[in-house]
Amino acid sequence: MTFIDRLVEAINAKKSVLCVGLDPQIPLFPEHLRKLEPYEAITTFNKGVINAVAQHAVAVKPQMAFYERFGSQGVRAFEESVRYAKEKRLLVVEDAKRGDGGDTAIAYAEGHIGKDSFAPIDALTVQPGIGFACLDPFVDVVKRDGNGIFVVTKSSFSPNSFVENLIVEGGDKVWEEIAKVVNQLGQGAEGKYGYTNVGVVMGATYPEDATRMRELVPKSFMLVPGYGAQGGGADGAVLGVDENGLGVLVNSSRDMTYAYSKGPFACDGKSFANASGLAAEFAKNDLNSALERRMAA
Amino acid sequence: MTFIDRLVEAINAKKSVLCVGLDPQIPLFPEHLRKLEPYEAITTFNKGVINAVAQHAVAVKPQMAFYERFGSQGVRAFEESVRYAKEKRLLVVEDAKRGDGGDTAIAYAEGHIGKDSFAPIDALTVQPGIGFACLDPFVDVVKRDGNGIFVVTKSSFSPNSFVENLIVEGGDKVWEEIAKVVNQLGQGAEGKYGYTNVGVVMGATYPEDATRMRELVPKSFMLVPGYGAQGGGADGAVLGVDENGLGVLVNSSRDMTYAYSKGPFACDGKSFANASGLAAEFAKNDLNSALERRMAA
Repeated sequence: MTFIDRLVEAINAKKSVLCVGLDPQIPLFPEHLRKLEPYEAITTFNKGVINAVAQHAVAVKPQMAFYERFGSQGVRAFEESVRYAKEKRLLVVEDAKRGDGGDTAIAYAEGHIGKDSFAPIDALTVQPGIGFACLDPFVDVVKRDGNGIFVVTKSSFSPNSFVENLIVEGGDKVWEEIAKVVNQLGQGAEGKYGYTNVGVVMGATYPEDATRMRELVPKSFMLVPGYGAQGGGADGAVLGVDENGLGVLVNSSRDMTYAYSKGPFACDGKSFANASGLAAEFAKNDLNSALERRMAA
Repeated sequence: MTFIDRLVEAINAKKSVLCVGLDPQIPLFPEHLRKLEPYEAITTFNKGVINAVAQHAVAVKPQMAFYERFGSQGVRAFEESVRYAKEKRLLVVEDAKRGDGGDTAIAYAEGHIGKDSFAPIDALTVQPGIGFACLDPFVDVVKRDGNGIFVVTKSSFSPNSFVENLIVEGGDKVWEEIAKVVNQLGQGAEGKYGYTNVGVVMGATYPEDATRMRELVPKSFMLVPGYGAQGGGADGAVLGVDENGLGVLVNSSRDMTYAYSKGPFACDGKSFANASGLAAEFAKNDLNSALERRMAA
Protein backbone atom coordinates (compact mmCIF):
# COMPACT_ATOMS: atom_id res chain seq x y z
CA MET A 1 0.00 0.00 0.00
CA THR A 2 1.47 3.37 -0.95
CA PHE A 3 1.86 6.36 1.35
CA ILE A 4 -1.27 8.14 0.26
CA ASP A 5 -3.42 5.07 0.93
CA ARG A 6 -1.81 4.63 4.34
CA LEU A 7 -2.65 8.29 5.00
CA VAL A 8 -6.29 8.00 3.86
CA GLU A 9 -6.81 4.91 6.00
CA ALA A 10 -5.23 6.52 9.04
CA ILE A 11 -7.43 9.61 8.64
CA ASN A 12 -10.54 7.44 8.44
CA ALA A 13 -9.50 5.16 11.30
CA LYS A 14 -8.47 7.91 13.70
CA LYS A 15 -11.03 10.47 12.49
CA SER A 16 -8.26 13.03 12.44
CA VAL A 17 -6.43 15.18 9.87
CA LEU A 18 -3.87 16.33 12.41
CA CYS A 19 -0.12 16.17 11.86
CA VAL A 20 2.12 17.13 14.77
CA GLY A 21 5.34 18.96 13.94
CA LEU A 22 8.42 17.76 15.82
CA ASP A 23 10.69 20.80 15.76
CA PRO A 24 13.04 20.36 18.70
CA GLN A 25 14.33 23.69 19.97
CA ILE A 26 16.23 22.94 23.14
CA PRO A 27 15.79 26.42 24.67
CA LEU A 28 12.03 25.78 24.56
CA PHE A 29 12.27 22.38 26.26
CA PRO A 30 11.23 21.84 29.89
CA GLU A 31 14.04 22.79 32.23
CA HIS A 32 14.90 19.23 33.28
CA LEU A 33 15.71 18.33 29.64
CA ARG A 34 17.65 21.44 28.67
CA LYS A 35 20.82 20.37 30.46
CA LEU A 36 21.11 17.05 28.60
CA GLU A 37 23.26 16.48 25.52
CA PRO A 38 21.30 17.24 22.31
CA TYR A 39 20.77 13.58 21.38
CA GLU A 40 19.34 12.69 24.80
CA ALA A 41 17.33 15.88 25.13
CA ILE A 42 15.73 15.56 21.69
CA THR A 43 14.91 11.86 21.80
CA THR A 44 13.52 12.05 25.34
CA PHE A 45 11.36 15.02 24.43
CA ASN A 46 10.15 13.57 21.13
CA LYS A 47 9.27 10.19 22.60
CA GLY A 48 7.17 11.88 25.26
CA VAL A 49 5.30 13.91 22.65
CA ILE A 50 4.91 10.93 20.31
CA ASN A 51 3.41 8.76 23.06
CA ALA A 52 0.96 11.48 23.99
CA VAL A 53 -0.26 12.46 20.52
CA ALA A 54 -0.25 9.02 18.84
CA GLN A 55 -3.98 8.42 19.31
CA HIS A 56 -5.01 11.89 18.08
CA ALA A 57 -2.67 12.55 15.16
CA VAL A 58 -2.18 10.57 11.96
CA ALA A 59 1.35 11.77 11.33
CA VAL A 60 4.33 13.59 12.75
CA LYS A 61 6.40 16.05 10.78
CA PRO A 62 9.97 16.35 12.02
CA GLN A 63 11.61 19.47 10.59
CA MET A 64 15.13 18.38 9.66
CA ALA A 65 16.66 21.82 10.23
CA PHE A 66 16.29 21.40 13.99
CA TYR A 67 18.10 18.04 13.95
CA GLU A 68 20.96 18.79 11.54
CA ARG A 69 21.55 21.91 13.65
CA PHE A 70 23.57 19.43 15.77
CA GLY A 71 25.24 17.62 12.88
CA SER A 72 25.53 13.85 13.00
CA GLN A 73 24.39 13.75 16.63
CA GLY A 74 21.18 15.54 15.69
CA VAL A 75 20.61 13.28 12.70
CA ARG A 76 20.95 10.28 15.02
CA ALA A 77 18.20 11.80 17.16
CA PHE A 78 16.11 12.22 14.00
CA GLU A 79 16.62 8.56 13.07
CA GLU A 80 15.60 7.39 16.54
CA SER A 81 12.55 9.67 16.58
CA VAL A 82 11.38 8.39 13.20
CA ARG A 83 11.83 4.80 14.29
CA TYR A 84 9.86 5.44 17.47
CA ALA A 85 7.01 7.24 15.69
CA LYS A 86 6.63 4.33 13.29
CA GLU A 87 6.54 1.92 16.22
CA LYS A 88 3.63 3.98 17.57
CA ARG A 89 1.92 3.68 14.17
CA LEU A 90 2.30 7.28 13.16
CA LEU A 91 3.16 8.23 9.60
CA VAL A 92 6.31 10.30 9.26
CA VAL A 93 6.44 13.29 6.92
CA GLU A 94 9.99 14.60 6.90
CA ASP A 95 10.05 18.33 6.38
CA ALA A 96 13.40 18.99 4.76
CA LYS A 97 12.43 20.92 1.61
CA ARG A 98 15.18 19.27 -0.37
CA GLY A 99 15.71 20.22 -3.97
CA ASP A 100 18.55 19.95 -6.47
CA GLY A 101 19.19 18.48 -9.91
CA GLY A 102 20.66 15.44 -11.60
CA ASP A 103 22.61 12.94 -9.50
CA THR A 104 22.12 15.12 -6.44
CA ALA A 105 18.34 14.94 -6.65
CA ILE A 106 18.62 11.18 -7.06
CA ALA A 107 20.76 10.98 -3.90
CA TYR A 108 18.20 13.02 -1.95
CA ALA A 109 15.32 10.92 -3.25
CA GLU A 110 16.98 7.56 -2.61
CA GLY A 111 18.36 8.67 0.74
CA HIS A 112 15.11 9.99 2.20
CA ILE A 113 12.24 8.10 0.57
CA GLY A 114 13.85 5.23 -1.37
CA LYS A 115 13.55 1.63 -0.30
CA ASP A 116 17.08 1.81 1.16
CA SER A 117 16.56 5.17 2.85
CA PHE A 118 18.47 5.99 6.02
CA ALA A 119 15.25 6.03 8.09
CA PRO A 120 11.69 4.69 7.53
CA ILE A 121 10.28 8.00 6.30
CA ASP A 122 6.84 7.96 4.61
CA ALA A 123 6.96 11.27 2.78
CA LEU A 124 9.30 14.20 2.20
CA THR A 125 8.77 17.88 1.42
CA VAL A 126 10.66 19.06 -1.68
CA GLN A 127 11.39 22.43 -3.28
CA PRO A 128 10.52 23.01 -6.92
CA GLY A 129 12.81 25.97 -7.67
CA ILE A 130 15.24 24.08 -9.87
CA GLY A 131 12.40 22.59 -11.86
CA PHE A 132 11.85 19.29 -13.56
CA ALA A 133 15.51 18.32 -13.18
CA CYS A 134 14.81 18.44 -9.45
CA LEU A 135 11.35 16.96 -9.23
CA ASP A 136 11.60 14.07 -11.68
CA PRO A 137 13.99 11.91 -9.60
CA PHE A 138 11.71 12.28 -6.56
CA VAL A 139 8.65 11.31 -8.60
CA ASP A 140 10.51 8.31 -10.03
CA VAL A 141 11.31 7.05 -6.54
CA VAL A 142 7.75 7.74 -5.37
CA LYS A 143 6.37 5.62 -8.20
CA ARG A 144 8.90 2.86 -7.67
CA ASP A 145 8.88 2.52 -3.87
CA GLY A 146 5.48 3.85 -2.81
CA ASN A 147 6.38 6.70 -0.48
CA GLY A 148 5.23 10.29 -1.03
CA ILE A 149 6.36 13.87 -1.58
CA PHE A 150 4.80 17.25 -0.88
CA VAL A 151 6.04 19.96 -3.23
CA VAL A 152 6.38 23.41 -1.66
CA THR A 153 3.93 25.41 -3.73
CA LYS A 154 2.49 28.09 -1.46
CA SER A 155 4.37 28.56 1.80
CA SER A 156 2.87 29.67 5.09
CA PHE A 157 5.36 32.38 5.92
CA SER A 158 4.78 36.05 6.24
CA PRO A 159 6.00 38.16 4.50
CA ASN A 160 4.77 36.03 1.68
CA SER A 161 7.22 34.60 -0.82
CA PHE A 162 8.19 37.09 -3.45
CA VAL A 163 9.04 34.30 -5.87
CA GLU A 164 5.83 32.31 -5.44
CA ASN A 165 3.79 35.49 -5.90
CA LEU A 166 5.51 36.92 -8.95
CA ILE A 167 2.98 37.25 -11.76
CA VAL A 168 4.04 35.62 -14.99
CA GLU A 169 3.06 36.41 -18.55
CA GLY A 170 -0.54 35.31 -18.96
CA GLY A 171 -1.61 36.50 -15.52
CA ASP A 172 -1.07 33.53 -13.19
CA LYS A 173 1.34 33.59 -10.31
CA VAL A 174 4.48 31.48 -10.05
CA TRP A 175 2.85 29.25 -7.42
CA GLU A 176 -0.02 28.49 -9.79
CA GLU A 177 2.47 27.47 -12.48
CA ILE A 178 4.17 25.19 -9.97
CA ALA A 179 0.79 23.66 -9.04
CA LYS A 180 0.09 22.86 -12.69
CA VAL A 181 3.41 21.04 -12.95
CA VAL A 182 2.73 19.15 -9.71
CA ASN A 183 -0.62 18.02 -11.09
CA GLN A 184 1.07 16.62 -14.20
CA LEU A 185 3.80 14.91 -12.20
CA GLY A 186 1.22 13.26 -9.96
CA GLN A 187 -0.38 11.39 -12.85
CA GLY A 188 0.46 7.72 -12.57
CA ALA A 189 1.33 7.98 -8.87
CA GLU A 190 -2.22 7.46 -7.61
CA GLY A 191 -3.12 5.03 -4.84
CA LYS A 192 -6.24 2.90 -4.69
CA TYR A 193 -8.42 5.73 -3.35
CA GLY A 194 -7.60 7.96 -6.32
CA TYR A 195 -5.27 10.39 -4.56
CA THR A 196 -1.74 10.83 -5.84
CA ASN A 197 1.46 10.37 -3.85
CA VAL A 198 2.59 13.76 -5.17
CA GLY A 199 1.08 16.38 -2.87
CA VAL A 200 1.56 20.09 -2.26
CA VAL A 201 2.45 22.30 0.68
CA MET A 202 -0.30 24.93 1.04
CA GLY A 203 0.08 27.46 3.85
CA ALA A 204 -2.92 27.86 6.16
CA THR A 205 -2.04 31.51 6.44
CA TYR A 206 -3.27 32.17 2.89
CA PRO A 207 -6.73 30.53 2.88
CA GLU A 208 -7.94 32.70 0.01
CA ASP A 209 -5.77 30.61 -2.31
CA ALA A 210 -6.84 27.18 -1.04
CA THR A 211 -9.86 26.78 -3.33
CA ARG A 212 -7.77 27.79 -6.34
CA MET A 213 -5.17 25.23 -5.28
CA ARG A 214 -7.86 22.53 -5.04
CA GLU A 215 -8.88 23.26 -8.67
CA LEU A 216 -5.27 23.04 -9.85
CA VAL A 217 -4.35 19.80 -8.02
CA PRO A 218 -7.64 17.88 -7.68
CA LYS A 219 -5.98 14.57 -6.77
CA SER A 220 -3.27 15.90 -4.45
CA PHE A 221 -3.30 16.05 -0.70
CA MET A 222 -2.36 19.42 0.72
CA LEU A 223 0.05 19.46 3.64
CA VAL A 224 -1.14 22.58 5.46
CA PRO A 225 1.38 24.20 7.79
CA GLY A 226 0.67 27.35 9.72
CA TYR A 227 -2.40 26.22 11.67
CA GLY A 228 -2.11 27.53 15.20
CA ALA A 229 1.04 29.38 16.17
CA GLN A 230 1.66 30.86 12.72
CA GLY A 231 -1.79 32.42 12.82
CA GLY A 232 -4.03 30.25 10.63
CA GLY A 233 -7.39 29.17 12.05
CA ALA A 234 -9.04 25.77 11.66
CA ASP A 235 -11.60 26.99 9.12
CA GLY A 236 -8.88 28.38 6.88
CA ALA A 237 -6.75 25.28 7.30
CA VAL A 238 -9.38 22.92 5.90
CA LEU A 239 -10.63 25.12 3.04
CA GLY A 240 -8.85 22.95 0.48
CA VAL A 241 -10.80 19.82 1.39
CA ASP A 242 -12.53 18.07 -1.50
CA GLU A 243 -16.13 16.83 -1.90
CA ASN A 244 -15.23 13.59 -0.07
CA GLY A 245 -14.06 15.49 2.98
CA LEU A 246 -10.47 14.48 2.24
CA GLY A 247 -7.36 16.05 0.76
CA VAL A 248 -5.88 17.97 3.69
CA LEU A 249 -3.32 17.06 6.33
CA VAL A 250 -3.05 19.93 8.79
CA ASN A 251 0.14 20.50 10.74
CA SER A 252 0.65 22.22 14.04
CA SER A 253 4.08 22.34 15.64
CA ARG A 254 4.73 24.68 18.54
CA ASP A 255 1.14 24.61 19.85
CA MET A 256 1.45 20.86 20.23
CA THR A 257 5.02 20.28 21.36
CA TYR A 258 5.34 23.27 23.67
CA ALA A 259 1.74 23.21 24.97
CA TYR A 260 3.15 22.85 28.48
CA SER A 261 4.70 26.32 28.38
CA LYS A 262 1.72 28.54 27.56
CA GLY A 263 -1.95 28.58 26.64
CA PRO A 264 -4.86 26.50 27.98
CA PHE A 265 -2.78 23.37 28.67
CA ALA A 266 0.14 25.05 30.41
CA CYS A 267 1.56 23.01 33.27
CA ASP A 268 4.77 22.06 35.03
CA GLY A 269 7.53 21.09 32.60
CA LYS A 270 7.70 17.57 33.99
CA SER A 271 4.21 16.98 32.53
CA PHE A 272 5.04 18.37 29.08
CA ALA A 273 3.87 15.20 27.30
CA ASN A 274 0.48 15.28 28.95
CA ALA A 275 -0.02 18.87 27.78
CA SER A 276 0.90 17.86 24.22
CA GLY A 277 -1.67 15.09 24.31
CA LEU A 278 -4.41 17.45 25.46
CA ALA A 279 -3.42 20.00 22.82
CA ALA A 280 -3.49 17.35 20.10
CA GLU A 281 -6.93 16.16 21.17
CA PHE A 282 -8.18 19.73 21.13
CA ALA A 283 -6.68 20.38 17.69
CA LYS A 284 -8.13 17.18 16.26
CA ASN A 285 -11.62 18.17 17.42
CA ASP A 286 -11.17 21.78 16.33
CA LEU A 287 -10.25 20.64 12.83
CA ASN A 288 -13.09 18.11 12.69
CA SER A 289 -15.59 20.82 13.61
CA ALA A 290 -14.17 23.04 10.87
CA LEU A 291 -14.44 20.16 8.40
CA GLU A 292 -18.10 19.68 9.31
CA ARG A 293 -18.80 23.36 8.76
CA ARG A 294 -16.95 23.27 5.46
CA MET A 295 -18.80 20.20 4.19
CA ALA A 296 -22.14 21.72 5.21
CA ALA A 297 -21.41 24.99 3.42
CA MET B 1 38.49 38.36 8.04
CA THR B 2 35.19 37.37 6.47
CA PHE B 3 34.67 34.51 4.02
CA ILE B 4 34.82 36.61 0.90
CA ASP B 5 38.17 38.13 1.88
CA ARG B 6 39.54 34.69 2.69
CA LEU B 7 38.39 33.63 -0.78
CA VAL B 8 39.94 36.62 -2.58
CA GLU B 9 43.24 36.10 -0.81
CA ALA B 10 43.27 32.37 -1.57
CA ILE B 11 42.56 33.05 -5.27
CA ASN B 12 45.41 35.54 -5.42
CA ALA B 13 47.83 33.36 -3.45
CA LYS B 14 47.17 30.15 -5.36
CA LYS B 15 46.43 31.81 -8.71
CA SER B 16 43.40 29.60 -9.03
CA VAL B 17 39.62 30.01 -9.20
CA LEU B 18 39.02 26.28 -8.93
CA CYS B 19 36.65 24.67 -6.47
CA VAL B 20 36.59 20.88 -6.31
CA GLY B 21 33.23 19.23 -5.67
CA LEU B 22 33.29 16.38 -3.16
CA ASP B 23 30.25 14.32 -4.14
CA PRO B 24 30.94 10.83 -2.83
CA GLN B 25 29.10 8.20 -4.84
CA ILE B 26 30.32 4.86 -3.58
CA PRO B 27 29.56 2.94 -6.82
CA LEU B 28 31.99 5.31 -8.58
CA PHE B 29 34.77 4.78 -6.02
CA PRO B 30 37.84 2.67 -6.80
CA GLU B 31 37.11 -0.98 -6.18
CA HIS B 32 39.24 -1.30 -3.06
CA LEU B 33 37.10 1.34 -1.30
CA ARG B 34 33.68 0.14 -2.41
CA LYS B 35 33.54 -2.68 0.08
CA LEU B 36 34.12 -0.49 3.13
CA GLU B 37 31.35 0.87 5.34
CA PRO B 38 30.12 4.26 4.05
CA TYR B 39 31.91 6.30 6.73
CA GLU B 40 35.28 4.66 6.05
CA ALA B 41 34.84 4.65 2.28
CA ILE B 42 33.86 8.32 2.09
CA THR B 43 36.47 9.70 4.48
CA THR B 44 39.30 7.66 2.94
CA PHE B 45 38.31 8.75 -0.55
CA ASN B 46 37.83 12.40 0.36
CA LYS B 47 41.11 12.67 2.25
CA GLY B 48 42.96 11.29 -0.76
CA VAL B 49 41.32 13.82 -3.07
CA ILE B 50 41.80 16.71 -0.62
CA ASN B 51 45.52 15.97 -0.24
CA ALA B 52 45.95 15.87 -4.00
CA VAL B 53 44.01 18.99 -4.96
CA ALA B 54 44.93 21.25 -2.02
CA GLN B 55 47.67 23.12 -3.89
CA HIS B 56 45.58 23.70 -7.03
CA ALA B 57 42.12 24.49 -5.68
CA VAL B 58 41.02 27.27 -3.35
CA ALA B 59 37.97 25.48 -2.05
CA VAL B 60 36.11 22.21 -1.90
CA LYS B 61 32.36 21.93 -2.28
CA PRO B 62 30.90 18.88 -0.55
CA GLN B 63 27.37 18.24 -1.78
CA MET B 64 25.41 17.30 1.35
CA ALA B 65 22.96 15.05 -0.51
CA PHE B 66 25.66 12.43 -0.97
CA TYR B 67 26.47 12.38 2.75
CA GLU B 68 22.98 12.47 4.25
CA ARG B 69 22.17 9.63 1.85
CA PHE B 70 23.67 7.53 4.68
CA GLY B 71 22.00 9.37 7.56
CA SER B 72 24.01 10.15 10.66
CA GLN B 73 26.90 7.96 9.50
CA GLY B 74 27.16 10.01 6.30
CA VAL B 75 26.95 13.29 8.19
CA ARG B 76 29.82 12.10 10.39
CA ALA B 77 31.84 11.54 7.22
CA PHE B 78 30.90 15.06 6.11
CA GLU B 79 32.09 16.51 9.43
CA GLU B 80 35.40 14.67 9.20
CA SER B 81 35.90 15.72 5.57
CA VAL B 82 35.25 19.37 6.37
CA ARG B 83 37.66 19.25 9.29
CA TYR B 84 40.34 17.68 7.10
CA ALA B 85 39.88 20.16 4.26
CA LYS B 86 40.28 23.07 6.68
CA GLU B 87 43.45 21.48 8.05
CA LYS B 88 44.76 21.47 4.48
CA ARG B 89 43.87 25.17 4.20
CA LEU B 90 41.03 24.76 1.75
CA LEU B 91 37.86 26.80 2.08
CA VAL B 92 34.70 24.74 2.41
CA VAL B 93 31.56 25.69 0.50
CA GLU B 94 28.78 23.37 1.63
CA ASP B 95 26.35 22.71 -1.19
CA ALA B 96 23.10 21.94 0.56
CA LYS B 97 20.69 24.41 -1.04
CA ARG B 98 18.84 24.89 2.21
CA GLY B 99 15.84 27.15 2.34
CA ASP B 100 12.86 27.58 4.63
CA GLY B 101 11.25 30.31 6.69
CA GLY B 102 11.07 31.67 10.21
CA ASP B 103 12.60 29.65 13.03
CA THR B 104 13.53 26.91 10.57
CA ALA B 105 15.66 29.24 8.46
CA ILE B 106 17.34 30.45 11.64
CA ALA B 107 18.14 26.83 12.60
CA TYR B 108 19.65 26.17 9.17
CA ALA B 109 21.68 29.37 9.25
CA GLU B 110 22.98 28.87 12.79
CA GLY B 111 23.60 25.17 12.24
CA HIS B 112 25.60 25.48 9.05
CA ILE B 113 27.31 28.89 9.04
CA GLY B 114 26.80 30.29 12.53
CA LYS B 115 29.65 30.62 15.02
CA ASP B 116 28.40 27.46 16.78
CA SER B 117 27.84 25.49 13.59
CA PHE B 118 28.21 21.71 13.62
CA ALA B 119 31.27 21.87 11.33
CA PRO B 120 33.72 24.67 10.31
CA ILE B 121 31.93 25.51 7.05
CA ASP B 122 32.91 28.75 5.27
CA ALA B 123 29.88 29.21 3.04
CA LEU B 124 26.57 27.55 2.24
CA THR B 125 24.35 27.44 -0.84
CA VAL B 126 20.75 28.48 -0.16
CA GLN B 127 17.49 28.40 -2.11
CA PRO B 128 15.47 31.57 -2.51
CA GLY B 129 12.06 30.05 -3.36
CA ILE B 130 10.41 30.95 -0.08
CA GLY B 131 11.63 34.50 -0.33
CA PHE B 132 12.78 37.06 2.20
CA ALA B 133 11.48 34.97 5.10
CA CYS B 134 14.05 32.40 4.01
CA LEU B 135 16.98 34.57 3.05
CA ASP B 136 16.97 37.16 5.84
CA PRO B 137 18.06 34.81 8.65
CA PHE B 138 20.99 33.59 6.53
CA VAL B 139 22.05 37.16 5.75
CA ASP B 140 21.79 38.08 9.44
CA VAL B 141 24.14 35.24 10.37
CA VAL B 142 26.50 36.13 7.50
CA LYS B 143 26.76 39.69 8.76
CA ARG B 144 27.17 38.64 12.38
CA ASP B 145 29.66 35.77 12.04
CA GLY B 146 31.52 36.46 8.79
CA ASN B 147 30.79 33.35 6.75
CA GLY B 148 29.13 33.43 3.33
CA ILE B 149 26.16 32.25 1.30
CA PHE B 150 25.59 31.63 -2.39
CA VAL B 151 21.95 32.02 -3.41
CA VAL B 152 20.77 29.65 -6.14
CA THR B 153 19.80 32.09 -8.87
CA LYS B 154 20.49 30.37 -12.18
CA SER B 155 21.13 26.64 -11.91
CA SER B 156 23.35 24.60 -14.18
CA PHE B 157 20.90 21.82 -14.91
CA SER B 158 19.37 20.90 -18.20
CA PRO B 159 16.46 20.98 -18.83
CA ASN B 160 16.68 24.47 -17.45
CA SER B 161 14.56 25.45 -14.48
CA PHE B 162 11.04 26.30 -15.47
CA VAL B 163 10.65 28.46 -12.39
CA GLU B 164 13.85 30.47 -12.86
CA ASN B 165 12.95 31.09 -16.49
CA LEU B 166 9.34 32.13 -16.10
CA ILE B 167 8.92 35.64 -17.45
CA VAL B 168 7.28 38.03 -15.03
CA GLU B 169 5.25 41.16 -15.67
CA GLY B 170 7.68 43.78 -16.93
CA GLY B 171 9.69 41.37 -19.04
CA ASP B 172 12.43 40.05 -16.77
CA LYS B 173 12.77 36.42 -15.81
CA VAL B 174 12.31 35.07 -12.31
CA TRP B 175 16.06 34.53 -11.93
CA GLU B 176 16.69 38.19 -12.72
CA GLU B 177 14.22 39.20 -10.02
CA ILE B 178 16.05 36.90 -7.59
CA ALA B 179 19.38 38.47 -8.58
CA LYS B 180 18.02 41.94 -7.82
CA VAL B 181 16.99 40.80 -4.35
CA VAL B 182 20.39 39.17 -3.77
CA ASN B 183 22.10 42.40 -4.70
CA GLN B 184 20.05 44.30 -2.12
CA LEU B 185 20.66 41.69 0.55
CA GLY B 186 24.40 41.81 -0.05
CA GLN B 187 24.61 45.50 0.88
CA GLY B 188 26.35 45.83 4.23
CA ALA B 189 27.93 42.38 3.98
CA GLU B 190 31.01 43.50 2.05
CA GLY B 191 34.53 42.50 2.98
CA LYS B 192 37.62 44.70 2.74
CA TYR B 193 38.07 44.08 -0.99
CA GLY B 194 34.57 45.35 -1.79
CA TYR B 195 32.95 42.00 -2.54
CA THR B 196 29.92 40.91 -0.56
CA ASN B 197 29.55 37.70 1.42
CA VAL B 198 26.22 37.17 -0.34
CA GLY B 199 27.00 35.46 -3.66
CA VAL B 200 25.02 33.71 -6.35
CA VAL B 201 25.04 30.32 -8.01
CA MET B 202 25.35 30.83 -11.77
CA GLY B 203 25.41 27.71 -13.95
CA ALA B 204 28.29 27.47 -16.43
CA THR B 205 25.92 25.76 -18.80
CA TYR B 206 24.13 29.05 -19.49
CA PRO B 207 27.02 31.43 -20.32
CA GLU B 208 24.75 33.75 -22.30
CA ASP B 209 23.29 34.93 -19.00
CA ALA B 210 26.58 35.47 -17.15
CA THR B 211 27.15 39.04 -18.31
CA ARG B 212 23.58 39.97 -17.38
CA MET B 213 24.17 38.40 -13.97
CA ARG B 214 27.35 40.45 -13.52
CA GLU B 215 25.36 43.66 -14.15
CA LEU B 216 22.71 42.64 -11.63
CA VAL B 217 25.09 41.61 -8.82
CA PRO B 218 28.25 43.69 -9.36
CA LYS B 219 29.68 42.96 -5.91
CA SER B 220 28.80 39.27 -5.66
CA PHE B 221 30.98 36.31 -6.37
CA MET B 222 29.41 33.74 -8.66
CA LEU B 223 29.77 30.11 -7.68
CA VAL B 224 29.80 28.49 -11.11
CA PRO B 225 28.87 24.80 -11.22
CA GLY B 226 28.67 22.82 -14.41
CA TYR B 227 32.23 23.32 -15.68
CA GLY B 228 33.44 20.01 -17.06
CA ALA B 229 31.21 16.98 -16.77
CA GLN B 230 27.96 18.93 -17.01
CA GLY B 231 29.11 20.37 -20.34
CA GLY B 232 30.28 23.92 -19.66
CA GLY B 233 33.66 24.98 -21.07
CA ALA B 234 36.26 27.15 -19.34
CA ASP B 235 35.50 30.21 -21.45
CA GLY B 236 31.83 30.06 -20.54
CA ALA B 237 32.61 29.40 -16.90
CA VAL B 238 34.59 32.62 -16.44
CA LEU B 239 32.34 34.96 -18.46
CA GLY B 240 31.00 36.55 -15.30
CA VAL B 241 34.40 37.80 -14.17
CA ASP B 242 34.65 41.50 -13.41
CA GLU B 243 37.15 44.16 -14.53
CA ASN B 244 39.55 43.12 -11.74
CA GLY B 245 39.64 39.55 -13.00
CA LEU B 246 37.72 38.42 -9.94
CA GLY B 247 34.19 37.42 -9.05
CA VAL B 248 34.02 33.78 -10.12
CA LEU B 249 34.65 30.55 -8.25
CA VAL B 250 34.37 27.67 -10.71
CA ASN B 251 33.41 24.22 -9.53
CA SER B 252 34.15 20.86 -11.06
CA SER B 253 33.09 17.67 -9.34
CA ARG B 254 33.15 14.39 -11.21
CA ASP B 255 36.01 15.37 -13.54
CA MET B 256 38.16 15.93 -10.46
CA THR B 257 37.13 13.22 -8.02
CA TYR B 258 36.68 10.42 -10.53
CA ALA B 259 39.53 11.41 -12.86
CA TYR B 260 41.05 7.97 -12.26
CA SER B 261 38.16 6.24 -14.01
CA LYS B 262 38.11 7.91 -17.41
CA GLY B 263 39.62 10.66 -19.53
CA PRO B 264 43.24 11.81 -19.88
CA PHE B 265 44.23 10.98 -16.28
CA ALA B 266 42.67 7.52 -16.10
CA CYS B 267 44.72 5.08 -14.08
CA ASP B 268 44.48 2.19 -11.67
CA GLY B 269 42.00 2.80 -8.86
CA LYS B 270 44.72 2.59 -6.21
CA SER B 271 46.15 5.84 -7.66
CA PHE B 272 42.84 7.72 -7.70
CA ALA B 273 44.20 10.62 -5.67
CA ASN B 274 47.09 11.19 -8.04
CA ALA B 275 44.65 11.40 -10.97
CA SER B 276 42.56 13.94 -9.06
CA GLY B 277 45.63 16.07 -8.46
CA LEU B 278 46.57 16.04 -12.15
CA ALA B 279 42.99 16.85 -13.15
CA ALA B 280 42.87 19.77 -10.69
CA GLU B 281 46.14 21.17 -12.01
CA PHE B 282 44.83 20.91 -15.56
CA ALA B 283 41.53 22.59 -14.63
CA LYS B 284 43.29 25.40 -12.78
CA ASN B 285 45.43 26.16 -15.83
CA ASP B 286 42.50 25.75 -18.23
CA LEU B 287 40.51 28.29 -16.22
CA ASN B 288 43.47 30.68 -15.96
CA SER B 289 43.92 30.62 -19.74
CA ALA B 290 40.23 31.35 -20.19
CA LEU B 291 40.50 34.23 -17.72
CA GLU B 292 43.42 35.69 -19.69
CA ARG B 293 41.41 35.49 -22.91
CA ARG B 294 38.42 37.07 -21.21
CA MET B 295 40.44 39.94 -19.74
CA ALA B 296 42.12 40.57 -23.11
CA ALA B 297 38.80 40.66 -24.96
